[in-house]
Amino acid sequence: MPLQYNEFYNESTGLTVGVKKLLFSEQTPYQLVEVYETDTWGNLMTIDGMVMLSEKDEFVYHEMLAHTGMFAHPNPEKVLIIGGGDGGTAREVLRHPSVKHVDMVEIDEAVVRASKLYLKDVGAWEDPRLTVLFEDGIAFVKQAKAEYDVVIIDGSDPVGPAEGLFEKGFFELCFSALKEGGVLTAQTESPWVPEYHSSMKKVFDALTEVFTKSSMYLAYIPLYPAGMWSFAYASKGIKALDADVLARVENGLPALGTKLNYYNKAVHSGSFALPNFVAEIIR
Amino acid sequence: MPLQYNEFYNESTGLTVGVKKLLFSEQTPYQLVEVYETDTWGNLMTIDGMVMLSEKDEFVYHEMLAHTGMFAHPNPEKVLIIGGGDGGTAREVLRHPSVKHVDMVEIDEAVVRASKLYLKDVGAWEDPRLTVLFEDGIAFVKQAKAEYDVVIIDGSDPVGPAEGLFEKGFFELCFSALKEGGVLTAQTESPWVPEYHSSMKKVFDALTEVFTKSSMYLAYIPLYPAGMWSFAYASKGIKALDADVLARVENGLPALGTKLNYYNKAVHSGSFALPNFVAEIIR
Repeated sequence: MPLQYNEFYNESTGLTVGVKKLLFSEQTPYQLVEVYETDTWGNLMTIDGMVMLSEKDEFVYHEMLAHTGMFAHPNPEKVLIIGGGDGGTAREVLRHPSVKHVDMVEIDEAVVRASKLYLKDVGAWEDPRLTVLFEDGIAFVKQAKAEYDVVIIDGSDPVGPAEGLFEKGFFELCFSALKEGGVLTAQTESPWVPEYHSSMKKVFDALTEVFTKSSMYLAYIPLYPAGMWSFAYASKGIKALDADVLARVENGLPALGTKLNYYNKAVHSGSFALPNFVAEIIR
Repeated sequence: MPLQYNEFYNESTGLTVGVKKLLFSEQTPYQLVEVYETDTWGNLMTIDGMVMLSEKDEFVYHEMLAHTGMFAHPNPEKVLIIGGGDGGTAREVLRHPSVKHVDMVEIDEAVVRASKLYLKDVGAWEDPRLTVLFEDGIAFVKQAKAEYDVVIIDGSDPVGPAEGLFEKGFFELCFSALKEGGVLTAQTESPWVPEYHSSMKKVFDALTEVFTKSSMYLAYIPLYPAGMWSFAYASKGIKALDADVLARVENGLPALGTKLNYYNKAVHSGSFALPNFVAEIIR
């Protein structure tokens, strides 16, 4: 029988990916980090048995998590990424020529080590504007006051070490860490997994209280549960679908110096269109 | 070991759904039709080992295939559905109060029989406006001239009996079957399955030649390959995103007499926003 990676996202629905071999497996103080060589998705990283990214589909998650917020801000110079140890979010952020400095705060150095070894095209580790810190993201953001233009929360699921990244207290710290006009984006799980609905509702309620308004947007990620993934957008005053924002997307995309595979102006707008059953989750 | 339904959508990527029992299995002259009782998705119909619908997720496919075209037309009275034997597309079409008659042409009566037995809430079989014909859809559409306001192509994949539904000659027949101002929608496979890209390109090229313009739109369908599904829209002159169309969606939704689970005005627009890699497939 061929080797397979299996992940079940509810009591009975699962994903199978054919695997050539296990490349990396380490039980860190925080979680089990593994990388597989797959048959058709390139190398695949999992944490505690949940897919984080594959080389073939990671562009969707990273482009959508990074650019939606980065283009919303008129001049993002200083960016904070909480989590994001595989390096893909930082890579997309660093494409923006306005960026002068990125702090990436990843609690688990093994994620970065595994990514540098086996997800070679995901990170932009050599960029001198990037500082990688192996610290607790919540502790880090506590000491940051009005420092960042954009904060991106790129943690794993709301069980395990990333649990605190879904709490209102954490969003208050993020709010304080943002400058005037700052923007926040975060990953917020799959709307097709009922077990996550209460976390999602809590996140959006908390973001709305802290930022006065928050919005959900969506992307198609084939190796995530049910292929639908949600993200949060919140800001100190910039609406995600303002005409100014859409003009910046249109004018700014060519300056990124590469053709993106997923994100564009229509996708920026369209991703905020929520199917009725999704809107219900956070109503 | 618990019972499982497994489907692989490429050489190594698969979906697993926990199953309680097999309810229906019949090798018809056309295909293998099966219905399973699942653990979490209600009953699930497959054809030749490919998921067609489950009771829990069918609303996405049927709402998006039906309403996108139905609202584009200012007054859809007569509608033709090719395929659609489970009955879900007809059910959504029949929600529109303007509809006077629907012809549903399904080649395989076993699909309708299985649906009536095991997908009881999917069809609207008792509606007197619905005529079900067990005939070859291509032969049927040949004899229809300027008869329909909307034609919906709801066939299975472009292998087996539905293969002809992806050919240019068939779209020419559909064009002739449509009245002035008529609208066509069709299902056109998952952009994440490279094996289907050439079929998709062929379909959109053919539709553009026959109708002078065609557009692709997308929906999240958890039990279809990779969770992303594409559809085609083409018409005799009505653009899918015209202000008139969007006004009709907004004003017409309350008249459907039920709250939809997926489709709304924002989703209508947003579904036409194609990620770059998807737009490339049909460029």
